[in-house]
Order: sequence, then C-alpha cells, then structure tokens
Amino acid sequence: MKTIGVDVGGTKILCRLVDSETGKASGRAKERTPKSGRGDVLASTAKLVTKLDPDDEAVAIGVGFPGYVQPDGVVVRCTNISGWDQPIDVGPILEKSIGRPVVVGNDVSLGALAEHRLGAGQGEKDLLAVFIGTGVGGGLILGGQIRGGDRGLAGEIGHLTVQANGRLCGCGGLGHLEAYAGKAGIEREARRLASNGETSFLMDMVQDGSMKSRHVQLALEAGDPVTLRLMTEAVDALAQAIGNVATILDIRRVVLGGGMTDKFGQDFIDQIVASSSFGGFGSGELELRLAERMDDAGAVGAALLAADSLARS
Amino acid sequence: MKTIGVDVGGTKILCRLVDSETGKASGRAKERTPKSGRGDVLASTAKLVTKLDPDDEAVAIGVGFPGYVQPDGVVVRCTNISGWDQPIDVGPILEKSIGRPVVVGNDVSLGALAEHRLGAGQGEKDLLAVFIGTGVGGGLILGGQIRGGDRGLAGEIGHLTVQANGRLCGCGGLGHLEAYAGKAGIEREARRLASNGETSFLMDMVQDGSMKSRHVQLALEAGDPVTLRLMTEAVDALAQAIGNVATILDIRRVVLGGGMTDKFGQDFIDQIVASSSFGGFGSGELELRLAERMDDAGAVGAALLAADSLARS
Repeated sequence: MKTIGVDVGGTKILCRLVDSETGKASGRAKERTPKSGRGDVLASTAKLVTKLDPDDEAVAIGVGFPGYVQPDGVVVRCTNISGWDQPIDVGPILEKSIGRPVVVGNDVSLGALAEHRLGAGQGEKDLLAVFIGTGVGGGLILGGQIRGGDRGLAGEIGHLTVQANGRLCGCGGLGHLEAYAGKAGIEREARRLASNGETSFLMDMVQDGSMKSRHVQLALEAGDPVTLRLMTEAVDALAQAIGNVATILDIRRVVLGGGMTDKFGQDFIDQIVASSSFGGFGSGELELRLAERMDDAGAVGAALLAADSLARS
Repeated sequence: MKTIGVDVGGTKILCRLVDSETGKASGRAKERTPKSGRGDVLASTAKLVTKLDPDDEAVAIGVGFPGYVQPDGVVVRCTNISGWDQPIDVGPILEKSIGRPVVVGNDVSLGALAEHRLGAGQGEKDLLAVFIGTGVGGGLILGGQIRGGDRGLAGEIGHLTVQANGRLCGCGGLGHLEAYAGKAGIEREARRLASNGETSFLMDMVQDGSMKSRHVQLALEAGDPVTLRLMTEAVDALAQAIGNVATILDIRRVVLGGGMTDKFGQDFIDQIVASSSFGGFGSGELELRLAERMDDAGAVGAALLAADSLARS
C-alpha cells in the first residue's frame, strides 16, 4: 500500500510518496508556500499530490501543518503561514479536491512518528522527539502512536517550566525551556545582556542582523564567555526538561533534531547527558540520539499517519 | 462479575470485594502486615481473600504493593515492608494458594485507577493523581489505563526536578519535587535551617520527635515565618511540576490526595493554582480536585485491574 505525505511549511510544501510496508519514500515534489492565503495553499497542496501521483497510486493522504491542529483535524492556526489565523477544517476541503481520504496532523508530531518508525527511535515502544531550532518543538510517541492529548497540544516540551519565574518565553510564560534553549531565546537574552552593558563577541558579530546558529558556533570557538554561559544554560535547561519527561513517562529513548542540534551534533547530546541537571528516575537508562531523518520527516510521518488511519478504519 | 482487590501496605493489608460493573465495594477485611518476611505477608494475603470471599465469588484477584513493581508483575522491592528487598514474582505464588488468577501492581498507580473510574477523575480520558504525604507519589492514567512505562516507573512526579541543583531528595537526586513538598523533605529542611540558627515555632514544637502535618498546620496558624516560607516553596514546587506534566501530556484533570492534602484541603489546591509557577500550556484548562476515594483506593484499584485483566484475556 502506498500513501502520500505532505509537509506544509512556512516556506515550502513538500510532498512524498511512501510505501507503508517498507517505509521507503519513492517520489518527491515540492513548491514554495503561497503567501496569498489558505485557499491557495490548499490548491497548491492538491496540485502537488496530483503531480507526484498522476495515476492515483496512493490510497490516502496525510498532511502536516506547522501549528495547532486539534484532535479532530481542525487547523486552529499556523503563525508561520500568512492567512492561517482562523480555525479551518482542511480535511474535507482536500478530500473533495483530491478525491481520496485525507488526515491532518501537527508537523512536529508527524516528524516524531517518522523518527520512531523509520529513524533513530526504531525498536522502542515510546519516543520523545525534541527539535531545537529558533524555538524548541517536541513530539511524543506512546505505544507506537502519536500522543495528541486532550486538545492536540501534547509533546510541547519547549513550554515546560525549567526555572520558576525565569526568562520570559515567546508565549508569555516565564522560565520555559524554549526561552533558554531556542535560538530566539538565546538571541533575546544576549541582546538583553548587551543592553545592560555585558557585551559579547556573539553580539559584535550579529549586531542588528538576525543571529544564526553559526554565529553561536563561531562565538563558542572564540571562547566568548557570554556565549559559553548562554549555551551552558541551554544545555542544563534541556537536560532538566528531557529528564523530567523521561521520569514521568518512564521512556528510554529521546531523539534530538532541528537546526541547533544539526550544528552542534553529538557533542551537544554529550553535554546534555553530562549536565548535573540531567536527573530524575528516568535518566539512568535513557538514551539520547541524533535524529536520522532529514527534512522529509514531517512529510513521511504524514504518509505513515494516513496509512495508520486507513488500517484503523 | 466480582473481583477482589488487596492493598498490601507498610502497616496493614486491606482487602475489598468489588462489583466490576458498578464499582461498588461490598466487603472488607484487614489485618496488620506481618513483619516476619515475605512468606508470611503472602500467607496473610491469601488468608484474607478466603475470609472475605469464602464462596469463591470473585473471579480474579488484584494485589497492590507499595514499591517498585515491574510491568511483568515482579515486585522488585518495597522499602516500607520488612524483608521485601529482593525481587519476587508474587503472582504465581498467590495463584497457587488462592486458586484464581492474580494480577499485581503498584499501589499508587492502582489508587489513581480507582480515582479515575470511581472518584474525582470520572469523565476524563486521562488523569494525573498526586499523593502528598511523607513523600510525593504519583500515578498516571492515559486513555483509561495505567501508564506503567518501560520499567513500570511512570508517574513518579515526586522525582521531577523543579530546581536545578536544588534540595537533596531522599533518592539522592537534587531539586526533586518530593524534597520540597513531601513532609519528610519539609522536616529535613526545617531541621537544616534550625541547625544553621534559623529557629522556628515548627521545630520548637517538634523538637527531637517526628514532624506531623498537624505541626505544620499549627505553625502556619501561628504565622511562623519559616513554616510559611517552606509551605510557599512546597506549593510553588507542586504548581511547577503539575503544570509541566499537564503541558507535556495535554491532560486536563489532576487529583490530589495523601495526608498533607487531607490536612490542608481545598485551600491547598487554591494556593497551587494561584502560584506564579503554575505555568505552561496545559494549565489554562487544567482542573485540580481533591481525591474522593478514602484509604481503600489502592484495594479498589487492584480489584479494577483484576477485572480489566480478565476482560483482556
């Protein structure tokens, strides 16, 4: 059986044809994400599916969105795609234009599903996937299935509190992991320190531009003390949050991905495991691994979800 | 269908006969827990079952132990029952003496199951139960079933880190919830402060005796500043840990029980919800309730597990 997975991102829409027995992805189509609203994004999605699979080989389609997706498939909002600020039930719309069953999910949870079935989570019943980039996203697989939770918001490890009354998070909360370990949080703190007179080589490089993970890497290599401190805080925050999730759920595999993880690699994982904050009952037998799937994890995960959903119905 | 649930505790063994359709517990037998080793505890358990159900009305028996129980039912250790320091597969032993199927579980998880089906967790798919007494125990129900996790250790909210490099926990970890919110942790900290010259009305009362929750209540009523501070820290730690579990799992009901909760009641819950540490994505729609089941929750939960296990086989 073949299914198609679509990953609707802020910049591109990626579409893959996946054999659900082997997990092998055999076709690929992509396109820039239209900035002209939801109708055009859905039209592009349907067009890509037809382009990738002109003979209707796929029996179902899964689509991942970078935002809040309810358990019933309603996409509540996607802050990174212009015009996606109102709830919309995309499944029926796409089913009408594509003519086959469509299931919808959150891109990060779908990425976690792909890592679990076909990547660094293979062989485990449960998996926590943590994606560290501009923010910190997470997906949770329990018993081989995505844990969506009551409102579809489960897995949001970036919004666990690691420090009571700590740094302000982008969501308005205080002391959340994302404020310490996400690139945007690190940049915000470095700018705040600079505005308080604590200059750094990092901010000397970035100035008014936007901070990239290579800036962080260069500053670390130069031994910049502010950057070293910020990265230690990031690592400790990750260690604490990951250890806590492992403890409460008693899982034993965590996969790390995302831009910051890609930049710092295995050394990043080694630092997390060595942190004194890596505590709790779960950490003893807990294994942290680099994500293995490339940037098609969301699309492949969406295809897997489509196959699961057919198998259940 | 009727099943029997047994709660093997550090001081008593409690046995209840439960109708699995209505959840009604119709019979009750108890006995002091023998201090003379595992054989005598298991013999007492079998004897109580026969006493409660002389006509073999119950079709299966569930037994809860206050310790680490593996997913396969092996009781690894129970630190509060003398002689229970080596792994023992109690199921087959009890099946032989009782002559009916026996399932085994952790007492706190079984208490959470009883609260979910018959107490303050009714109507929800998922539930976190937190029992605050000498320590802080927890049980997790996901999709109506106990979440045991890889090694049977899931739900241990007491060992989530709430403060990096914080107070020493009884388990040897640093900054765990239990070190802030468990009665033993509060007592340890009060004694440490006293030995550093920071006297308190609490320790004036307790002296060399053992601290009870009524001592804490009296000291709070007297406005003792050290006790007020310790209780604020306990409440904040609970708020942070509970908010984090709710966020990562997207659950919406938490039940609180245990001796400290019984003592402080609804006011305790109100303080947790009002804490600035009660953050995260999950807290907005999160409902905290007092546990409704009395001290028979473990026994009734064990009976429910026995019925579940028959229904699955």
